[in-house]
Amino acid sequence: MKDELEALDNEKPPPELQLAANKQHKGYAVVDLPATGKERLVVLGSGWGAVSLLKTLQADLYDVISISPHNYFVFTPLLPSVTVGTVEFRSVMEPIRRILKRTRGRYIEAGAVDVDFEAKMVLVEKQGQFMWVPYDRLVVGVGAQSVTHGIDGLQHCHQLKSVSDARSIRQHIMANFEKAVLPTTSLEEKRRLLTFVVCGGGPTGCEFAAELYDLLVEDLVHYFPETIQGLVNVVIVQSRDHILNMMDQKVSEFAEDTFSRRNMKVITNSRVARITESSIFYTSKDLEGNVTEHEVPQGFVLWSTGLSLTPFTRLICDRLADSQKNRHAITVDDHLRVKGISDGSVYALGDCATVEMPHLLEHIQELFDSVEHTNTGEITRDEFEVFIHSTARKYPLAAGHLKELGVHFDDFDADGNGVICLSEFKNMLVHVDRSLTALPALAQVADQEGAYLGRSLSILAKTFAETSDNAHSSVHDKAIQPFNYHHHGTLAYLGRAAAADFGGGYTYRGSNLAAKYLWRSTYWSMQVSLRTRLMLAMDWTRELLFGRDISRF
Amino acid sequence: MKDELEALDNEKPPPELQLAANKQHKGYAVVDLPATGKERLVVLGSGWGAVSLLKTLQADLYDVISISPHNYFVFTPLLPSVTVGTVEFRSVMEPIRRILKRTRGRYIEAGAVDVDFEAKMVLVEKQGQFMWVPYDRLVVGVGAQSVTHGIDGLQHCHQLKSVSDARSIRQHIMANFEKAVLPTTSLEEKRRLLTFVVCGGGPTGCEFAAELYDLLVEDLVHYFPETIQGLVNVVIVQSRDHILNMMDQKVSEFAEDTFSRRNMKVITNSRVARITESSIFYTSKDLEGNVTEHEVPQGFVLWSTGLSLTPFTRLICDRLADSQKNRHAITVDDHLRVKGISDGSVYALGDCATVEMPHLLEHIQELFDSVEHTNTGEITRDEFEVFIHSTARKYPLAAGHLKELGVHFDDFDADGNGVICLSEFKNMLVHVDRSLTALPALAQVADQEGAYLGRSLSILAKTFAETSDNAHSSVHDKAIQPFNYHHHGTLAYLGRAAAADFGGGYTYRGSNLAAKYLWRSTYWSMQVSLRTRLMLAMDWTRELLFGRDISRF
Ligand SMILES: Cc1cc2nc3c(=O)[nH]c(=O)nc-3n(C[C@H](O)[C@H](O)[C@H](O)COP(=O)(O)OP(=O)(O)OC[C@H]3O[C@@H](n4cnc5c(N)ncnc54)[C@H](O)[C@@H]3O)c2cc1C
Ligand SMILES: Cc1cc2nc3c(=O)[nH]c(=O)nc-3n(C[C@H](O)[C@H](O)[C@H](O)COP(=O)(O)OP(=O)(O)OC[C@H]3O[C@@H](n4cnc5c(N)ncnc54)[C@H](O)[C@@H]3O)c2cc1C
Repeated sequence: MKDELEALDNEKPPPELQLAANKQHKGYAVVDLPATGKERLVVLGSGWGAVSLLKTLQADLYDVISISPHNYFVFTPLLPSVTVGTVEFRSVMEPIRRILKRTRGRYIEAGAVDVDFEAKMVLVEKQGQFMWVPYDRLVVGVGAQSVTHGIDGLQHCHQLKSVSDARSIRQHIMANFEKAVLPTTSLEEKRRLLTFVVCGGGPTGCEFAAELYDLLVEDLVHYFPETIQGLVNVVIVQSRDHILNMMDQKVSEFAEDTFSRRNMKVITNSRVARITESSIFYTSKDLEGNVTEHEVPQGFVLWSTGLSLTPFTRLICDRLADSQKNRHAITVDDHLRVKGISDGSVYALGDCATVEMPHLLEHIQELFDSVEHTNTGEITRDEFEVFIHSTARKYPLAAGHLKELGVHFDDFDADGNGVICLSEFKNMLVHVDRSLTALPALAQVADQEGAYLGRSLSILAKTFAETSDNAHSSVHDKAIQPFNYHHHGTLAYLGRAAAADFGGGYTYRGSNLAAKYLWRSTYWSMQVSLRTRLMLAMDWTRELLFGRDISRF
Repeated sequence: MKDELEALDNEKPPPELQLAANKQHKGYAVVDLPATGKERLVVLGSGWGAVSLLKTLQADLYDVISISPHNYFVFTPLLPSVTVGTVEFRSVMEPIRRILKRTRGRYIEAGAVDVDFEAKMVLVEKQGQFMWVPYDRLVVGVGAQSVTHGIDGLQHCHQLKSVSDARSIRQHIMANFEKAVLPTTSLEEKRRLLTFVVCGGGPTGCEFAAELYDLLVEDLVHYFPETIQGLVNVVIVQSRDHILNMMDQKVSEFAEDTFSRRNMKVITNSRVARITESSIFYTSKDLEGNVTEHEVPQGFVLWSTGLSLTPFTRLICDRLADSQKNRHAITVDDHLRVKGISDGSVYALGDCATVEMPHLLEHIQELFDSVEHTNTGEITRDEFEVFIHSTARKYPLAAGHLKELGVHFDDFDADGNGVICLSEFKNMLVHVDRSLTALPALAQVADQEGAYLGRSLSILAKTFAETSDNAHSSVHDKAIQPFNYHHHGTLAYLGRAAAADFGGGYTYRGSNLAAKYLWRSTYWSMQVSLRTRLMLAMDWTRELLFGRDISRF
């Protein structure tokens, strides 16, 4: 392993990027990328999607340029642990320059602000300096931002998206404890300082709340007076009727149960109305539909609700308004190509993208004819089996649902005559189409999309090298299978307890140390590099031996 | 070890501190400390001196209250390593609440702003809240601050005193590299961004410069283009004629030599005149005494010059102006009691204090009579030996010099008659007095003073418990030996090389990996807790395997 690293290290970094002399585009300088015979692959973002692509792409096929305002990848699932000191900052970060080493990619620390799809250039900005970066292929993996719901006072909230967010959260928590314990602080103020509110009952909010609780009962309890500990309040405000509502119901009930046994307050069916420096206001509806407003004095608020487009991705969608109707993400086809770009040179993945689900109904005649060979206008049980398998291959994103259907032939054979007629077939397609929901905004989705795109682009580069075909899209379609997603389950850490939803109704709920270590080993094997994996093991050993760090810096 | 930690952890933290009801002193609330029969020991600061005291003090003898604006101890010698990512933030920090656990001490996160020596109370402040904390004994270990020499533009400089300083330095360095490599950055600007200036050629400045150089040649070289690397400039501006001038001359020459071989620029005999956002101006004198001003465009300046009083310690000195003449530190006697406090209830130690050196000349008659028993008015060689030993015992801070004198009897026997007369004796005392210089502002001094005071206070508490004598000072003097300092040498890391000055002319200069590990093992054994020691070992292993972290967060 050390040798491997050294071998990599001994390769020199690629030469510096320069501006093209005397060249401007729409008023800004253009980066000069000397022709090397390879296509220029520009990757925006250094998150799950982009990094997974960079790790999968074969070396030496493209001139790779990575652009992101953050020069590191963050292992987001462990950010809640970082906020309370169980895990170190650096254990969840990996420098992007290190990741780029293998493909000899270049890195520009800047943010994309515009694209010119005709000229094939991205405009990037850093501290008021702008430049155009030309591309042959562009991958957009810039993530999403929190929805604000137009709420006043969000400047008083923390978010948890980056390592610096995690740091300021940690400082804030410890500062509140130190302030609460001062003799000059009134009882009411102590209570306020020690009320931690989480807006949003999704996995991030719940995991943060659980980690906070762990910090309290496992560590602070040894260092702060009992009277102070008794004043701590962890509150989760959730607009739906359950927390973790995207997971199996058994999981979300288990979570609510676990939290309530810990004196954490879960307020459901409530909407945050506004936030001030020292309070949060939320409204709830009673059964008669009467809305009442409540005030909770708070010392800390985490804002962790749904996702929306960033200014940059909104601009892309507006540009391609004819093909882009979704309000929350860039729509891509099943090869992850952005809809509306005719030559297929722009891809999007991760939280900023949503893969268009197949609409089987649109292909009803074609699908029906492809299996109904006997010209009876009816599909037999055997033909149905064939249909399931061939369609699953063609539309892999529908495969899961189609395969579940296989055993339910009888459900769709409404008249019970042992065969399926066209109208019965139509009902079935409507059912399948309806059950296909967008892929969730999860690291595992971004990760699989990135790996898929890394492999696709590697195949493409070789295919093009062998053909003179310029119709990129058709070559693309022929050479590469559509994207397929495998759900590995969702795991939430609930404080000395973990709940997992593996899909298809399989769940795990455990509340002992084993749960904690199941959870840990899962993350451990997901870690991006050997370095971060080892560091994580060290962090956990340290926590086990010495507890969390309670200093504030 | 784990058991030990757990045993500690199972003890409950002491109850919360409260304000005394209806009690005010000079307009501010007073903290209520219920009588427990023990003396109240208030310790200001959580640095080397204070922590060493808290670690040495026996448990259960005092009601301990620790007050510091930072709730952690920092292992300062490794701060330069933290700035470049060789060592992790948390490996050099230890939470003060953990340190206080053994003595069941209380902690207040606040800064001392005033003392009322008559009422025996310290006024502390936190974010505009003030309160008086009563004490029976007060220890001042609040450290010092950098001298500014009245220079304009210090707001453009970094300092390196705390962990947050180290973090902002690290961010700044990486930001400059990322900015320098942008195609939009002009060559001149790249050069400026990559010019790192260190003001002050003391150990901190030199170690930082060396670490920066290591980062460059060991890590950044693998990730940044060669052209950029060629533009890096590390400049040290020193007012004296050598860097590391407090160490042996051989050491400082070795350092200059090492640095110049590395293309680091050492500018001596030069004074910084002013600093702007993008330049540093310094003046130098040529041999004729002509002063010229020079400008160096810079992307980063570290200000690391001498020390001076903080506002709080200046106030103490002003209060006790009759006994406090030193401009740079609080003068304490050889028991570390602040001069001018008649009941000896206030101590000071570390960088904020200076131990008054013995003035043997003032005691000439007494000293002469105590050895000259033969009434000849002359001291024989044997009597001289006795004098050396008894005086060294009485004035331990002079012991080192006195013992060196022992072999030089002949030097002081000016007329060569084999005995020393009163006037020869006087010359000798003048010589000894002159050679006794103030103890340096070093961690090892603060550490030894803290340990001494921890032991002294433990003895005192027991002595008082046995006597009814109220004359504290005289009991103190009888029960406890004066403070004695053992210099363990000064070590400076110079980048894959280390130089050590062990005093008495013994030096070590090595420039290979062995030097690096000598240096490391020295620090390792100095680390405060088992936790930080283990973490440090992990950090170094990590660096060895994976290099430093180059992400910026
Ligand atoms: C606290 C937290 C916990 C989570 N836990 C889990 C979990 O347990 N399991 C799970 O599956 N998912 C989890 N997620 C969700 C997961 O992190 C996201 O789904 C995933 O990060 C999406 O990857 P991405 O590449 O699309 O975007 P991100 O990982 O968000 O990366 C976006 C990247 O784009 C960069 N960028 C932003 N704007 C620009 C621009 N204009 N130009 C160029 N670059 C730009 C950013 O710097 C960043 O590097 C969690 C998320 C959070 C915040
Ligand atoms: C970067 C660096 C490297 C160094 N390397 C070495 C080395 O290699 N070897 C060596 O021997 N020495 C070294 N030193 C010097 C050494 O750190 C100091 O001599 C030592 O820290 C002095 O200890 P102290 O307890 O007096 O003060 P500090 O350790 O400076 O602690 C002062 C404490 O007082 C607190 N405080 C400040 N104001 C107040 C207030 N008003 N009220 C209450 N608390 C207050 C601070 O928060 C802090 O906790 C280095 C110093 C630095 C900055």
